[in-house]
Amino acid sequence: MKDCSNGRPEGSGQGDLEEGVESFKAKDLIITPATTFKEKPDPKGLVFGAEFTDHMLIVEWCADSGWGKPQIQPFQNLSLHPASSALHYAVQLFEGLKAFRGVDNKIRLFRPHLNMDRMFRSAVRSTLPVFDPQELLECIQQLIKLDQEWVPYSTSASLYIRPTLIGTEPSLGVKKPKKALLFVILSPVGPYFSSGTFNPVSLWTNPKYVRAWEGGTGDYKIGGNYGPSLWAQCEAAENQCQQVLWLYGKDQQITEVGTMNLFLYWINEDGEEELATPPLDGIILPGVTRKSILELTRDWGEFKVSERYLTMAELENALEEKRVKEMFGSGTACIVCPVANIVYKGQVLHIPTMENGPKLTSRIFTKLNDIQYGREESDWTVELP
Amino acid sequence: MKDCSNGRPEGSGQGDLEEGVESFKAKDLIITPATTFKEKPDPKGLVFGAEFTDHMLIVEWCADSGWGKPQIQPFQNLSLHPASSALHYAVQLFEGLKAFRGVDNKIRLFRPHLNMDRMFRSAVRSTLPVFDPQELLECIQQLIKLDQEWVPYSTSASLYIRPTLIGTEPSLGVKKPKKALLFVILSPVGPYFSSGTFNPVSLWTNPKYVRAWEGGTGDYKIGGNYGPSLWAQCEAAENQCQQVLWLYGKDQQITEVGTMNLFLYWINEDGEEELATPPLDGIILPGVTRKSILELTRDWGEFKVSERYLTMAELENALEEKRVKEMFGSGTACIVCPVANIVYKGQVLHIPTMENGPKLTSRIFTKLNDIQYGREESDWTVELP
Repeated sequence: MKDCSNGRPEGSGQGDLEEGVESFKAKDLIITPATTFKEKPDPKGLVFGAEFTDHMLIVEWCADSGWGKPQIQPFQNLSLHPASSALHYAVQLFEGLKAFRGVDNKIRLFRPHLNMDRMFRSAVRSTLPVFDPQELLECIQQLIKLDQEWVPYSTSASLYIRPTLIGTEPSLGVKKPKKALLFVILSPVGPYFSSGTFNPVSLWTNPKYVRAWEGGTGDYKIGGNYGPSLWAQCEAAENQCQQVLWLYGKDQQITEVGTMNLFLYWINEDGEEELATPPLDGIILPGVTRKSILELTRDWGEFKVSERYLTMAELENALEEKRVKEMFGSGTACIVCPVANIVYKGQVLHIPTMENGPKLTSRIFTKLNDIQYGREESDWTVELP
Repeated sequence: MKDCSNGRPEGSGQGDLEEGVESFKAKDLIITPATTFKEKPDPKGLVFGAEFTDHMLIVEWCADSGWGKPQIQPFQNLSLHPASSALHYAVQLFEGLKAFRGVDNKIRLFRPHLNMDRMFRSAVRSTLPVFDPQELLECIQQLIKLDQEWVPYSTSASLYIRPTLIGTEPSLGVKKPKKALLFVILSPVGPYFSSGTFNPVSLWTNPKYVRAWEGGTGDYKIGGNYGPSLWAQCEAAENQCQQVLWLYGKDQQITEVGTMNLFLYWINEDGEEELATPPLDGIILPGVTRKSILELTRDWGEFKVSERYLTMAELENALEEKRVKEMFGSGTACIVCPVANIVYKGQVLHIPTMENGPKLTSRIFTKLNDIQYGREESDWTVELP
């Protein structure tokens, strides 16, 4: 067990996993401040993930001595051995979350513990070293604090946080790495919808490409789920679509859209008003926004909220019978992203999301946006200390 | 089409793909020799892929200006932007082949064009830039020439060649990279079986873990197929097995073993003597050794050679009826690797490979070994100019 245990206690359940693990500690942080500082960009012109702040967090790990001390250092290139397992065998995982500057000028993170916990689970699955999620969160908070002027003074922009964990074993054997590097970089990002109003997307389907499968890793946030999707993404673009709608199985289940979870708001086959999203059966990424939308709408109690399978046949049928209200993707980048069209078997299926307001999509967006920017009190946000 | 074309001519078939592509040229090679040289290790003590030669090949690419000039430089760390798409989204692929020092002291590569062509196909699938396979091969030959003293003076060791192509787009958007880096590193490797005789392996099965799937990328040599396999590999090790036997589908088809293709030599259900390996249906890596074994044994014409599905039920049945002769994995590292046991549903299925000689496994090993080390003339080898 030892070689593969990632330092976790044997036989412990998921709930206990995060206790008692060997971890770096936020109190050990070594900070080397930058001596030159980049100009902060206008939030309006930002391209997602293309500009970075002045500092980054790095923590090295090796099997013999465990985690080194966490370090905040000037943003800089990584020096990696060319045989690093991250570069050959995709021994790598990441997270994505945001810091928001609220209307009260306080900086808030949105449910960051969920990201830290998911990162922990990804590390276990990837045979990468685990850590105390709370310690990582505290290190990230200190990093943001140092670069706090990079959190845009805007309620339509934010600071995207990208924790990453990679295998740096300098050897070509396909095996659990004995060296790893955790790093966190920060990128100011603008509004997903530049006009401030919703821009609906068109989706491309091709059952030839399958994002994730039973027995695979589609429910972990690891690099190997993303690179292979680019080919289909290019095919979508060639066909004037913005995103891929990923189908699964002989019955062509609707699973995810691009890198987002998917929601359908409709009158279901039993005549019930329902907000539905595919269940977490192993091929769906357990999105933080997905979870928040489910909890929010269940709390409202105004319509049925289901984690259930949805097939293309069911959708086509519902479209014919005019039972579809709205369809949207959900993710950290956009919160919600309305869907207007699906190209399926050479035909364009129009989804009347925009014609329906989009009432529900807008309401969810406004609610989560209000929480993130501090217009509404919520225990879903964590203020920067 | 333009954005996703990787510079290839539109609408051209696979056969034409490699003609007329924009590529770096071997004649443009810039060589910066090392000034310090490492001590060459004893071939007997080598761990696979852990030591590297004095030089490496690198070629940079960017969307605007295409390929830069190929460079041979001292072996050194790569300086990578921390947002590089290779580190976050597994935009990466690799190849593996070997150079052998023959009994006549000539250095030979084994069917290197097959590796170059497969790398080309992996690049297309990964939305990474393509290149002329012949130009890459010539660059690699020059690299080996410079480090030729690293090709072990041994007919049980060789020089492992690892071409790699990674996305270096310094941005977090999930998209086709506009920057890439091709690099090749060389590692002297010892005999796979240290004693010089075959050491058979035991295989671990767990249908819970699926290596590749229809609509995925199991038939490309890309990083994302490997990292996710480590978890199952660890489970195998915890259960005293050396490799994972990857099963697929409800009927538990036998697909691959560890990172190798799989062969079964048996009397099939129709009473025919047969060498069988799963067909290239999209979930199987098209191995160079696999292809060579098929061509070799078909050429012998002594028994039926099939690319066909094999299920665990068929194997169990054949074992009961004592129709199984040998089972082995095939790959560049070992050529062939005999299988002695499969742990399946908590039971140990004994495969009588070693009890049968292993006659066929040994014969294939000897034949390919003779070709690789120049004991036998063959157009499968390419001599270093």
